[in-house]
Amino acid sequence: MVLYILSPLTEGAVLESAKKILEREGKIVNEWLDKLLPGENEPPANLHKAMRYSVFAGGKRLRPILAVLSFRYCGGSGDTIYPPACALEFIHTYSLIHDDLPSMDNDDLRRGLPTNHIVFGEAMAILAGDALHAAAFELLAIGGDIAVVADVAKAIGTKGLVGGQVFDMEAEGNPQSAEILEKIHLGKTAALLTASLRTGAIIAGADTRKLEAVSIFGQKMGLAFQIIDDILDITADEKALGKPIGSDRERGKATYPAFYGIEKSREIATDLIDEAKAAIGESERTESLRSIADFILERAF
Amino acid sequence: MVLYILSPLTEGAVLESAKKILEREGKIVNEWLDKLLPGENEPPANLHKAMRYSVFAGGKRLRPILAVLSFRYCGGSGDTIYPPACALEFIHTYSLIHDDLPSMDNDDLRRGLPTNHIVFGEAMAILAGDALHAAAFELLAIGGDIAVVADVAKAIGTKGLVGGQVFDMEAEGNPQSAEILEKIHLGKTAALLTASLRTGAIIAGADTRKLEAVSIFGQKMGLAFQIIDDILDITADEKALGKPIGSDRERGKATYPAFYGIEKSREIATDLIDEAKAAIGESERTESLRSIADFILERAF
Repeated sequence: MVLYILSPLTEGAVLESAKKILEREGKIVNEWLDKLLPGENEPPANLHKAMRYSVFAGGKRLRPILAVLSFRYCGGSGDTIYPPACALEFIHTYSLIHDDLPSMDNDDLRRGLPTNHIVFGEAMAILAGDALHAAAFELLAIGGDIAVVADVAKAIGTKGLVGGQVFDMEAEGNPQSAEILEKIHLGKTAALLTASLRTGAIIAGADTRKLEAVSIFGQKMGLAFQIIDDILDITADEKALGKPIGSDRERGKATYPAFYGIEKSREIATDLIDEAKAAIGESERTESLRSIADFILERAF
Repeated sequence: MVLYILSPLTEGAVLESAKKILEREGKIVNEWLDKLLPGENEPPANLHKAMRYSVFAGGKRLRPILAVLSFRYCGGSGDTIYPPACALEFIHTYSLIHDDLPSMDNDDLRRGLPTNHIVFGEAMAILAGDALHAAAFELLAIGGDIAVVADVAKAIGTKGLVGGQVFDMEAEGNPQSAEILEKIHLGKTAALLTASLRTGAIIAGADTRKLEAVSIFGQKMGLAFQIIDDILDITADEKALGKPIGSDRERGKATYPAFYGIEKSREIATDLIDEAKAAIGESERTESLRSIADFILERAF
């Protein structure tokens, strides 16, 4: 393990830098989310309450923040990135609400809070997810870039997010292979993270080289992110995780630690983060993205 | 009743013309739908099978056909309208799949066939709906008009389709008012029908006057369409309807016949269809749209 942990000094500095970025940008994203969501007294009030409940039930705002950082890295400035960036958080939230449903993962808790269907009932939870899905495309359209709409729609469809969920569901309790694992993780996690980075790049008017660089960064980092999530499901403190640990194993979910073991999974995640960082190169302009990548890895140790 | 039925001769001619249009255009739409949906052997195969099952489980293709007719009425020609038109059918299908779920309307049959969750299970039905929702926006983006994306997204969100479903759900078993009834029907039915007509108009490059005309046509006709659906739930032959009759009443659903009675509801629908036709005016170019409007009304008698 000593081979791939960061030195305490570097680790501390990286963590601090990433935490500052996440905190600063997260605050701005939260203000935009609040502004962009319908008020909870506006009819249909219960629907808007349900949407707001899950959007504001915690979360690091990783997807919108990655869109913002990618936008800046590609030369964008100003506020135009925030509405499309928030659309990505709407999509992430919709997918979590549907994923938690009784017929899906049947989760009662997420981030320490009762899941949407526990609070609002199953029908409202389905509709709140559907409404966030639609609202996301309304925001992306206001963002004004049709290429972003096409890109995000593709990333969350049968070849991306939803496809990944299906592969994940179908792999439950079945023998796993490295190929299936990668396919599940690329779909259910890396696709939307990559789309977030690409959204920022496209809106900033990035050239093909930079668009390609953030795409590779997103894929590698997204894969690492899910591997680390799976590791945390085994090793984390239940209170810190905000949901019962060990649930993946209980369900016979296809995970990296179940297939490779924890140590090897950490090695794979470390390599992926290195490859992600290499794709965007080491410069002042890539510092924020690289420190987020390091932060994601750090959670696993 | 004699006051507002069409003369047998006119009725016959109108019906024949509308049926011909629906048959001819429906066939073309079906070919496009088949081409635009992922193959059912393409992985994730079960997801693609579930999507295809519901898209091809019957249906008149009213939304895509309205988009096509509106496109032509507004001066459009060629095939460019078909992908965005099919996107509207994807959205309609997604909303039916979710609407039929056990926690929603809990319907086992639709158009004489088992509903999606009966065949593929609840989790897959939710995901098939989600995937059709995303696929619709991918198609709309390929259509290339960001105004259409914004328009459709708004029409199917909290102020349209999903909002209407919530109002509908919350009205179940409660005292009804004319305002609530109209709000439910405008949201759950008229919004997407109007968006379909507007999609065709926007893609054809319609001017404001024509866009406004098809919007009014859509709202009035959409409201009439839902009123007639509610009437048919009481009066239709069970076999012809493809699902058990009387289910609205059993659930205490907010419907026009429950509030106004069948005769008065028919009168309201007839007036709405007249207003719809008046909005687009009587000319050779509006003949197809007007005959579809008459066809919709005719179902109620």
